[in-house]
Amino acid sequence: MKKVYFKNLKEYCGQEITIEGFVDSIRDLQYVQFLIVRDTTGKVQVTIEKNCKLNEMVSNLTCESTVKIVGTLLKNEKVKLNGMELVPSDIVVTSKCLEELPLNYKDSKSALLDTRLNYRFLDLRSEKNLLMFKVQTCLINAMREFVLKHNFIEIHTPKIISAASESGSDVFEVKYFDRKAYLAQSPQFYKQMAMCSGFDRVFEVAPAFRAENSNSYRHTTDFTSFDIEMSYVESLEELMDFEENLFIAGLTAVKEKYGEEIKNLFNVDVVIPTKPFPRIPLEELYKKLGNEYGFKMNYEDVGDMNAESEKLASKYVKEKYGHEFVFITDFSAKKRAFYHKRENGIPQGADLIWKGCETTTLALREHRYEILCEQAKEKGLSEDVKFYLEFFKYGCPPHGGFALGVDRITMLLLETGSLKETMFLFRGPGRIEL
Amino acid sequence: MKKVYFKNLKEYCGQEITIEGFVDSIRDLQYVQFLIVRDTTGKVQVTIEKNCKLNEMVSNLTCESTVKIVGTLLKNEKVKLNGMELVPSDIVVTSKCLEELPLNYKDSKSALLDTRLNYRFLDLRSEKNLLMFKVQTCLINAMREFVLKHNFIEIHTPKIISAASESGSDVFEVKYFDRKAYLAQSPQFYKQMAMCSGFDRVFEVAPAFRAENSNSYRHTTDFTSFDIEMSYVESLEELMDFEENLFIAGLTAVKEKYGEEIKNLFNVDVVIPTKPFPRIPLEELYKKLGNEYGFKMNYEDVGDMNAESEKLASKYVKEKYGHEFVFITDFSAKKRAFYHKRENGIPQGADLIWKGCETTTLALREHRYEILCEQAKEKGLSEDVKFYLEFFKYGCPPHGGFALGVDRITMLLLETGSLKETMFLFRGPGRIEL
Repeated sequence: MKKVYFKNLKEYCGQEITIEGFVDSIRDLQYVQFLIVRDTTGKVQVTIEKNCKLNEMVSNLTCESTVKIVGTLLKNEKVKLNGMELVPSDIVVTSKCLEELPLNYKDSKSALLDTRLNYRFLDLRSEKNLLMFKVQTCLINAMREFVLKHNFIEIHTPKIISAASESGSDVFEVKYFDRKAYLAQSPQFYKQMAMCSGFDRVFEVAPAFRAENSNSYRHTTDFTSFDIEMSYVESLEELMDFEENLFIAGLTAVKEKYGEEIKNLFNVDVVIPTKPFPRIPLEELYKKLGNEYGFKMNYEDVGDMNAESEKLASKYVKEKYGHEFVFITDFSAKKRAFYHKRENGIPQGADLIWKGCETTTLALREHRYEILCEQAKEKGLSEDVKFYLEFFKYGCPPHGGFALGVDRITMLLLETGSLKETMFLFRGPGRIEL
Repeated sequence: MKKVYFKNLKEYCGQEITIEGFVDSIRDLQYVQFLIVRDTTGKVQVTIEKNCKLNEMVSNLTCESTVKIVGTLLKNEKVKLNGMELVPSDIVVTSKCLEELPLNYKDSKSALLDTRLNYRFLDLRSEKNLLMFKVQTCLINAMREFVLKHNFIEIHTPKIISAASESGSDVFEVKYFDRKAYLAQSPQFYKQMAMCSGFDRVFEVAPAFRAENSNSYRHTTDFTSFDIEMSYVESLEELMDFEENLFIAGLTAVKEKYGEEIKNLFNVDVVIPTKPFPRIPLEELYKKLGNEYGFKMNYEDVGDMNAESEKLASKYVKEKYGHEFVFITDFSAKKRAFYHKRENGIPQGADLIWKGCETTTLALREHRYEILCEQAKEKGLSEDVKFYLEFFKYGCPPHGGFALGVDRITMLLLETGSLKETMFLFRGPGRIEL
C-alpha cells in the first residue's frame, strides 16, 4: 500500500484512507473527541463523535502515542487545520506513550539546553529539529550531486590510523588489539593519496575526530566532514570558484524546497550568494577592521584569524558588499599546514567565512616531493608523516581541496547558534552519554 | 577552461587542446617519440617527431610522471589507440616520477597481496582498481538516490559512544579525555532513536568498527555501513521488498554505466535480480542442503548460518531458481539480537545472502517498551542498554531496518574475492599502516 503523507492529504478527500503517525494532542469534549495526528510532513484532525465504539479507547489514549487510523477524509471548512477531518472507522494504538514526557519539546525555552540534550530523543520531535535534518539532508545531497556531476569518485578512508598525523595533540588514542592507534582528525592525507593514485577528483562525507578540550559553540569532538580533493587545479582562484558553485548548488536546492518553512520556523532568509564572493588578503582585512571598527590584532593573530576577526570580517563584507560570504587569503606560512603550496612564501590558500564563522580552509597542496619534504621538516615533522611523503615520489598531479563541517554549515545556515543544537547527538569533552 | 576527459577526445579532432594526465608509457625511437598519456577515462597517444624542441625533454621524461600538454588532436587511422594522436606544441612536466615504481601495479600477480597493500597508493593506479571505485560510487549513489526518493532523512550518528553497547566484546576502547569510551560497532541504537524521535525514515552511510581478531576474506575492523531504518513497517515482507528494490536500483545504475567495462576487466556479468528474491526458512534450507549436498549442520549452527551454509545456500538457489540472491528467514531467537521483534518466538528477520556471502541482516524491531526490556533481560543486558530502552517509553512507531556493508557488496558485485582487494585502504588486526 502506498504511504499517505499528510502534506498530500488533499488528494484523498472523500476517500477511505489509512494514516499513521504520532498523537500530537487530544481534546476529549462532551459531545466529541478530537485527535491531532502528525507525521513528518504535517498534521490532520481526527474527529470522533460520541456514542461510537472508539470513544473509550480515545479516552485512554495518551499524547505522543503512535496510531494507525482507518477512516474517511472529509472536507469541513469549519476545521481550522487545512479544512479537513478524518472520521475514523478504526484506530489501532501501535505504541503507547507510557509516561508523561520529561521534556516539553514543543517549547525549547522550557528547559535548559543540557536537559534538552539529555532527552535529545524527545527534543528532536520538535518541528524545528525535524526541519533542520530535512534541510541538512537536502543541502548535503545537493552538494553531493554537484560533485558527482563533476566526475568525483566517492572514497571511504580509514578512521583508525597508526600515527597521530599532523600534530599529535588533539588526537584520540584507540586501543587496537595489542598496540596503540588513533582516530583520524581528517581524511587529508588519504584524499591526497587518492590524487597520487590518479583518482583525479574525490570526495568523502564521514566523521572526523578532534580531542579538543573546548566548549565553544562551534567545537565538537566527533563531527561530519565533507571533504573534497581535485587534481590539475593550478590556482587558488579555481578552487574558490569551485567552492562558490558548490555552495550555490546546495543553497539553491535548500531555498527551493524549504525556503519558506525555514523563514517560518527559524526566521532566516536563505540567501543564494552571488559570484564571485568577496576576497580579501588578511593584511588588508586587518587594516580595514582597524579603520572601521577599531580592531587591534594581537600578536597571536598575526598571520591568522580568530573568532573576533571572523565575526568582524563578516560584518564588514555585509556592510560593504551586502554579502554573507568572504574568502580571506594570504595567511602566514607559519600558521598554515606544511602541505599547503606556497608562492613567494605565501600559502596558496584561503579561509571561507560565512556569517561570522570559518567554514572551510581551502588550499592548493604542495605536490612536489622535495619541497614537501622540506616544508614538513620546517614544521618539525618527520617519522609520523613519512608514509605520507612516500605518496609523492612516483608522480602526483598538482591538486587542491577543502573540507566543510556538515554540522557547522547547518548551524550557520539555520542560525541555531550552537553545534549542540544542530548535531543529531552532540559530542563534547563533557558529553558522551546517549 | 573546461576539462577535457580523454573519453570525449573525439569531439576535439582537428582542434588545439590542452590535456593533463599520467605518462603511461614512453617509446623513444630513432625518428619519433611516442607517449601514451592516461586520465581516469582513457588514454591518448602523443606523437613527437624528432628534430623538435621537445625531444630532449621527452627523452628525460619518466613513466608515471604527470604532464600538461598543449597540442593539436589529429585523426590518424594508423594509430591503434582510437585512431587519433596529439601533436604537441608544448609539454609541461607537472610532477616527475623520481624513482622506479616498487610495484608493477599493472600486473596484480607480480606481487604478493601484502606487498600490494604496502604500496596501495600505487596499486590503486590499476585500471581495475580505478573502475572498482567508480562502480562503488555509482552503486552507493544510486542506492542513496533511491532512499532519498522515498523520503529518507540522512543522519550522522556519533561514532564515539559511552557504553560498549551490544556485547562488550569486539569493541574498540578509546581514551576520551579522562574517561573510557568506545567506537560504535553500528548506528543501530541511534537509527532506532531517530524512529522514536519521529524521523519516520532515516539512512546513514558511515564507518563502523569491529574489534574482531579475524583474518577472513570478509572481515575488517573499519568498514563502511549503509544503514536504513523505517517506521510503520509491519511485516518482514515489506522490508524484504524494500531491500529488493534498493538492490535493483543500485545494480541497474551500475549495469547501465559500467556493465561492459566490468565484463571486460573483471569478467563479471552484472545481473539485475528479478523480484521476489527466493525466501527460504532456515530449517527448510538445512534439510535441502542435506539432501542436495550432504550438508550436516553442526551444533553451533543450529538456528544460525555459517560460511559454509551461506555458500551452499547460494549454490542451491542458483541451481534451483537461477537467482543470485536468497533471503533466509526464521532464525532462532537465541542467535539474534534482543531488539529483533518476535512472532510466536520466531525473530521477524532474515539474512540476505548474495553470491555465497551474507550481505544484510534485516529485521523488524521490538518497539514495545515492556517486551523490549524483557528481551534485553533474557540476553543478560541491563546497564549498558538502559539509555536505549528509555527511547521507547514515550511512543515509538513500529519499525524495521537493515545495514549493508559497502565494501562487502562491492567485493561481491565485482567478485574480487577479498575485502583487502576492495577497500580503499584495508584495516585488519595486523594491518593499520598507511
